[in-house]
Amino acid sequence: MQTLNVSLAERSYPIYIGAGLLSSDLMRRHVRASQVMVVTNETVAPLYLDKMLASLEGLKVDTLVLPDGERFKTLATLETVFDALLEKRHSRTTTLIALGGGVIGDMTGFAAACYQRGVDFIQVPTTLLAQVDSSVGGKTAVNHPRGKNMIGAFYQPKAVLIDTDVLKTLPPRELGAGLAEVIKYGLIRDADFLQWLEDNMALLRAGDTSALVTAIERSCRNKAEVVAADETEQGERALLNLGHTFGHAIETATGYSEWLHGEAVATGMLLAAQLSADLGWLTPVQVGQVAALLEKAELPLAPPAGMTPAQFRELMAHDKKVLDGQLRLVLLKDLGKAVVTADYDAACLDALLQRVCG
Amino acid sequence: MQTLNVSLAERSYPIYIGAGLLSSDLMRRHVRASQVMVVTNETVAPLYLDKMLASLEGLKVDTLVLPDGERFKTLATLETVFDALLEKRHSRTTTLIALGGGVIGDMTGFAAACYQRGVDFIQVPTTLLAQVDSSVGGKTAVNHPRGKNMIGAFYQPKAVLIDTDVLKTLPPRELGAGLAEVIKYGLIRDADFLQWLEDNMALLRAGDTSALVTAIERSCRNKAEVVAADETEQGERALLNLGHTFGHAIETATGYSEWLHGEAVATGMLLAAQLSADLGWLTPVQVGQVAALLEKAELPLAPPAGMTPAQFRELMAHDKKVLDGQLRLVLLKDLGKAVVTADYDAACLDALLQRVCG
Repeated sequence: MQTLNVSLAERSYPIYIGAGLLSSDLMRRHVRASQVMVVTNETVAPLYLDKMLASLEGLKVDTLVLPDGERFKTLATLETVFDALLEKRHSRTTTLIALGGGVIGDMTGFAAACYQRGVDFIQVPTTLLAQVDSSVGGKTAVNHPRGKNMIGAFYQPKAVLIDTDVLKTLPPRELGAGLAEVIKYGLIRDADFLQWLEDNMALLRAGDTSALVTAIERSCRNKAEVVAADETEQGERALLNLGHTFGHAIETATGYSEWLHGEAVATGMLLAAQLSADLGWLTPVQVGQVAALLEKAELPLAPPAGMTPAQFRELMAHDKKVLDGQLRLVLLKDLGKAVVTADYDAACLDALLQRVCG
Repeated sequence: MQTLNVSLAERSYPIYIGAGLLSSDLMRRHVRASQVMVVTNETVAPLYLDKMLASLEGLKVDTLVLPDGERFKTLATLETVFDALLEKRHSRTTTLIALGGGVIGDMTGFAAACYQRGVDFIQVPTTLLAQVDSSVGGKTAVNHPRGKNMIGAFYQPKAVLIDTDVLKTLPPRELGAGLAEVIKYGLIRDADFLQWLEDNMALLRAGDTSALVTAIERSCRNKAEVVAADETEQGERALLNLGHTFGHAIETATGYSEWLHGEAVATGMLLAAQLSADLGWLTPVQVGQVAALLEKAELPLAPPAGMTPAQFRELMAHDKKVLDGQLRLVLLKDLGKAVVTADYDAACLDALLQRVCG
């Protein structure tokens, strides 16, 4: 097992990474009192809920099984979490455990942030994407019809427990979606890791455990460093949004149901790389490298058929990085070096969207 | 004008108290960028919205007028705030201004805590209760059918602006409700202030400006000291809940519509004093003093007709101060000295409830 630490003063917490951790007693160590609520979904529950409940034996455990999917990441679903907590009389010393992917983690974390003005929670991510990204760093949220993650909180978990065994049941598309965020770390701040990914993508796609552990550990380390430096995204943390402004537009346009988040981010990262090249910051060869790596990870390279430049512009205008009416984008000055900038030619962006849409 | 400071490191903020502040430029100083949304209600808007808008001239100001009343302090109303913010494209640098009583302040603050994971907000309380209590200290929340303030956040405003002129239009019942929270500070930690209140209650009830300014300043100073020592209610801050466990039960039982919050707290404080006397901590004379002061403030002294001991017990079991199944209460060791304790005889509580209910 490997242990990383997210350093945030009194809000610091460990990330445990290893095989078989779901059956360990690690989780109990981070449960404050005797009450626990496990929040999971219909897909994950049949696979891993029993194993988790066994590891919590002796505690007063309630379980809430939510429907699976990004389209349920809403205030309405959040309300059912509050209903369950109050019905089962969970007090302020309860601990919520998020057993699932990013949607379960984001919602459970936000519920923990708000329930009685804040209770403890533990992240047990069961998708690669949640393991390398959403479970670490305390961004919690639900979606609004007008935009993704528009309602939420910065609220850190007490621990993140990553059992790599759960990836054995992960559908291949979900594995790819997670790899998109893994590649992101290489692109924004870790050129050596990007090289390693080019060399090992075939192993990762084949589900090789050792390669996956390396990729998860390196990704979490990158994320933990960024979060420790900028918890509430006043600066550097925004770099983690590479590809996300385009990606969120794709997800919103397709109703959060057809594209996986990581897939939308992959296409978004390629668009960001292309715009960076149009601005003269990357060479066409480097854009080709990005495209090739995403392709090896079996990720989509083009926006959904039928999506228009006007749709992109309209949806991107709601991005949280808009500052005084100006849309800032995460772009690449080099492979392994991202910047947040409003210093791009809007006409370049328009031309790119024209080129890639249909 | 008097200025107090709430000392919370990088979350510190000023409380301005004085006549005519609504027309001053104080608010502008705390608006971060050019975008503002004023959230108010149907009762306050006709009285003070124009004055506020005049003081914000030159900024990009949107207004949201909500229905008036505690029963609208719900997730559903909160959603309309998010809808308005997104529809008007408010970005992460926007500032929300809460112009109203405790309900508006609690909801606007919680909306600010959650919108895009946190934007600035300013409290402009227009009831005495909000001026001396809810606008200071960063407790934000909405109610749940199963309990008051069950969903919320600790989220501090950037400033609190208290214009004492607005009390001139405050209905007498609302003035009384505010006086309940004023009396609370005396009872829990400021015996000298309690004495001053006994001497000046007639002036306060008559709306004497100078007496009101003194009472507001002294109340806010007490509150600021408690909050600075214990922002997230790990200990001392719970003392501010004197009378609130009983009071919330009354409010929930009556559907948040018949009793004002301060009225329910007043009756709750008297119940807490009576229980404290039953436990031998206060003398019957002291309980009589509390009752007389509340009566002078024109506050109710008995629970609503028809409310049963069983209802009290059921509703109080949901209180946020429940710890591992044990209900803790704020009780009085003396006038001016409160404690949070589970160290009371449950039979005493039962007997008291039997005695006071019908």
